[in-house]
Amino acid sequence: MKVDINCDMGESFGVYRLGCDEEMMPHITSANIACGFHAGDPVVMERTILFAKNNGVSVGAHPGFPDLVGFGRRNMELSPRELRNDLIYQVGALSAFAQIEGLSLQHVKPHGQLYNLAAKDESMTRSICEAILALGKNLILVALSGSKMAEIGSKNELRMAREAFADRAYHRDGSLVSRKRGGSVIHDPGRVSERVIRMVQEGKVQSIEGDVIDLEVDSICVHGDTPGAVQLAQMIRGNLEGAGITVLPMGTFL
Amino acid sequence: MKVDINCDMGESFGVYRLGCDEEMMPHITSANIACGFHAGDPVVMERTILFAKNNGVSVGAHPGFPDLVGFGRRNMELSPRELRNDLIYQVGALSAFAQIEGLSLQHVKPHGQLYNLAAKDESMTRSICEAILALGKNLILVALSGSKMAEIGSKNELRMAREAFADRAYHRDGSLVSRKRGGSVIHDPGRVSERVIRMVQEGKVQSIEGDVIDLEVDSICVHGDTPGAVQLAQMIRGNLEGAGITVLPMGTFL
Amino acid sequence: MKVDINCDMGESFGVYRLGCDEEMMPHITSANIACGFHAGDPVVMERTILFAKNNGVSVGAHPGFPDLVGFGRRNMELSPRELRNDLIYQVGALSAFAQIEGLSLQHVKPHGQLYNLAAKDESMTRSICEAILALGKNLILVALSGSKMAEIGSKNELRMAREAFADRAYHRDGSLVSRKRGGSVIHDPGRVSERVIRMVQEGKVQSIEGDVIDLEVDSICVHGDTPGAVQLAQMIRGNLEGAGITVLPMGTFL
Amino acid sequence: MKVDINCDMGESFGVYRLGCDEEMMPHITSANIACGFHAGDPVVMERTILFAKNNGVSVGAHPGFPDLVGFGRRNMELSPRELRNDLIYQVGALSAFAQIEGLSLQHVKPHGQLYNLAAKDESMTRSICEAILALGKNLILVALSGSKMAEIGSKNELRMAREAFADRAYHRDGSLVSRKRGGSVIHDPGRVSERVIRMVQEGKVQSIEGDVIDLEVDSICVHGDTPGAVQLAQMIRGNLEGAGITVLPMGTFL
Repeated sequence: MKVDINCDMGESFGVYRLGCDEEMMPHITSANIACGFHAGDPVVMERTILFAKNNGVSVGAHPGFPDLVGFGRRNMELSPRELRNDLIYQVGALSAFAQIEGLSLQHVKPHGQLYNLAAKDESMTRSICEAILALGKNLILVALSGSKMAEIGSKNELRMAREAFADRAYHRDGSLVSRKRGGSVIHDPGRVSERVIRMVQEGKVQSIEGDVIDLEVDSICVHGDTPGAVQLAQMIRGNLEGAGITVLPMGTFL
Repeated sequence: MKVDINCDMGESFGVYRLGCDEEMMPHITSANIACGFHAGDPVVMERTILFAKNNGVSVGAHPGFPDLVGFGRRNMELSPRELRNDLIYQVGALSAFAQIEGLSLQHVKPHGQLYNLAAKDESMTRSICEAILALGKNLILVALSGSKMAEIGSKNELRMAREAFADRAYHRDGSLVSRKRGGSVIHDPGRVSERVIRMVQEGKVQSIEGDVIDLEVDSICVHGDTPGAVQLAQMIRGNLEGAGITVLPMGTFL
Repeated sequence: MKVDINCDMGESFGVYRLGCDEEMMPHITSANIACGFHAGDPVVMERTILFAKNNGVSVGAHPGFPDLVGFGRRNMELSPRELRNDLIYQVGALSAFAQIEGLSLQHVKPHGQLYNLAAKDESMTRSICEAILALGKNLILVALSGSKMAEIGSKNELRMAREAFADRAYHRDGSLVSRKRGGSVIHDPGRVSERVIRMVQEGKVQSIEGDVIDLEVDSICVHGDTPGAVQLAQMIRGNLEGAGITVLPMGTFL
Repeated sequence: MKVDINCDMGESFGVYRLGCDEEMMPHITSANIACGFHAGDPVVMERTILFAKNNGVSVGAHPGFPDLVGFGRRNMELSPRELRNDLIYQVGALSAFAQIEGLSLQHVKPHGQLYNLAAKDESMTRSICEAILALGKNLILVALSGSKMAEIGSKNELRMAREAFADRAYHRDGSLVSRKRGGSVIHDPGRVSERVIRMVQEGKVQSIEGDVIDLEVDSICVHGDTPGAVQLAQMIRGNLEGAGITVLPMGTFL
């Protein structure tokens, strides 16, 4: 039994710091690195690639909408061609930093509203798949387990990773509970950790409505910018390994 | 006897159009494509790569300062690390568009004030050389013939192209006459064309002070955004070929 | 019988030129000046204010979404607070240039998708009205005649101008025919001019479906960035005046 | 004996937080608020104006170079017209937020490298003075005490505030010791506080070379983004008041 742990990284910008990238690295296996559109800049990208390399963490691109002030969290309506090219641009830029350090990109995980909208929107997912396939047949697309994006992605010849969120509540249809609702984020480390083990071992999670739903998981997403994030990631990984689950980069087993 | 003809391309942005990229392509052999910092955007980059591919024109990156409103024409003081990473980011982004079309980047030509400052500044040139070497041993750096950048570049293991400007006046020290001065741009097509042939055949050009100076030339820069640009490029190429000079991409003979 | 003629202006950016601002000025009475978010920059704003001043044209703000590469023509979902503050920022910036030249802003006309979305969206219109009222009780909001924005705006204590488009086709419900559809733009100058006179004199226009609909008009929008724009504006104004209609800034009669 | 205490504020951007604006407000009398070019955004500007209003703190603009990723700390060479208009744009935008809350701007303090370069550069200072005078005869320009900017500013009919830095070391010529040098920042709160009182009471400070130099001070700059910033500001203000010095906004006594 194998699982990957991924985390959004490299979301600092200029003098602004966000997340505990360096501290998180020892506890994860895949880093999703921002590419300068919703967050990140060339210096931050270089630094984050180096952190990942030094910790043996696999690297992937975390492209977002071209909306720095909104952190890529606001809906934007791009044409398919704009979306495809914005992705190629961002992944290409990050790829250069990786190659220089002798790494190649393992995966692409869309950020924020790009991720959320594509989870439900077939046309957006198609543009994303097209861009990723053009960039390289080996690149893995990370998508919300059970989403439209996961479904469409796997119909292509695309490598897919199905992702689950360690500390986010789910609806019975497999969608995430909106951050605007109470109970959307689970704060108790013990509960988070138990949920994660159940997701991986049984492929099940209890929804906010109470039902237990199916959830196939290749990678667990942990957050690096919340209080206690480092300890939580360490605990999740420790408990997974304690339960006999091997934690390693998605690219090694997908 | 061989020479390349290069032109700055892909400097449109969003709804804004600049230059006659498509019309210029048949008359040049190398395209310097803007990468989104001083000009260009992902859609423009894709389109320009396709224009070049369709015309058998070799493609290179034309990175600039992160100053869209100033079009990369204003002095900026970046740290060596910022400069290196800004270059890697831009070249990497463009490189992805090229690779998708089965092309690889032939060269890098810094834009605007980055080009002008580096022509004289050893530290900047070093950062540029470092970035280009990291990105690929085959990438050619295009530098003003006779400049500090050309001198330092050739001391590295870097492939270098020495560039001359078809329609710009030179000082006796080989530097370009500032655009702010009268006589900095030569408008008469016949004179421009004659100068170019002399540069290539004899390695000489008459300076604005009257002296004839030496000028080794691997590539002639023509402009795509001035009135009559397409006709001038066509005439220059025709006259070069008429004089028995082979016009082809710098990467084939450097 | 009175009517205003307005035109979008100041949409150049850095080296990029858009529209024939200076040439259009003699033929219009109100200039909608871009404020740096979707287009325009501080130098362009100063220049456009001066053009308007020299031609006795009244000035207004033309704020847009913070999306330069998309020219404010892509849907964006801003929170009410973001929208309000983005408007205050843009109108405030332009207002400073106006005040320095002894002018005060006459009106605010939202740009592109901000205008189109607000025409139908009550919440957006409320944020727009709130921002304008906060900025000054005398500022006129320019809205599509017959739209939700026009309706809501007039329920506030806001001064409103109802706008019609000289060369755009209308649906029978008073909405504009999308630019993506054939027939959305009327190219024949004679027909455009006749339509405009009928709009102003009779308050009627023939829709693309054939029905004649009511349309109350305070201001006619002409475009400054299409071929023949200057001649068309001149003809429209001439014909209006020839028909006994007084053409003058909206602020003088609303 | 009177003095003002000023602090840079509103330098957060989107999701990125910088400085303890709200906590600093009770201890200062003038807030220099970023205007969106080097830092700040419309939502941050509104919030910061409200913090200031609620604490009876006078507000001023803190305009910077258009360089968000460099936080306005990198040299840029703008033309006089670009500089003037960039300032008018930024001050105008902030001014609108102030007016809406019934406040008017008290002062303008250039940020980062704009401040540092203008301290020595006559042409830049002239552009700054021109912009401020155009914006309003009552606006105070805050300049480094003893600098070229302070000298030129006072030759104009401009209101000037001469500023000293609480925790920065000075050279014997009155210039600040570069942050790149050791000893440039004084960390001991007791020493900082003593220096400030001597500056205000005696108009003197000991330079890093050991000499005691003259320094006329209207306003003391404290920082809001360093560890212990709030406590230090509180201590400085307390000690000033304990020494019989009245601490109040510069606009009330200049």
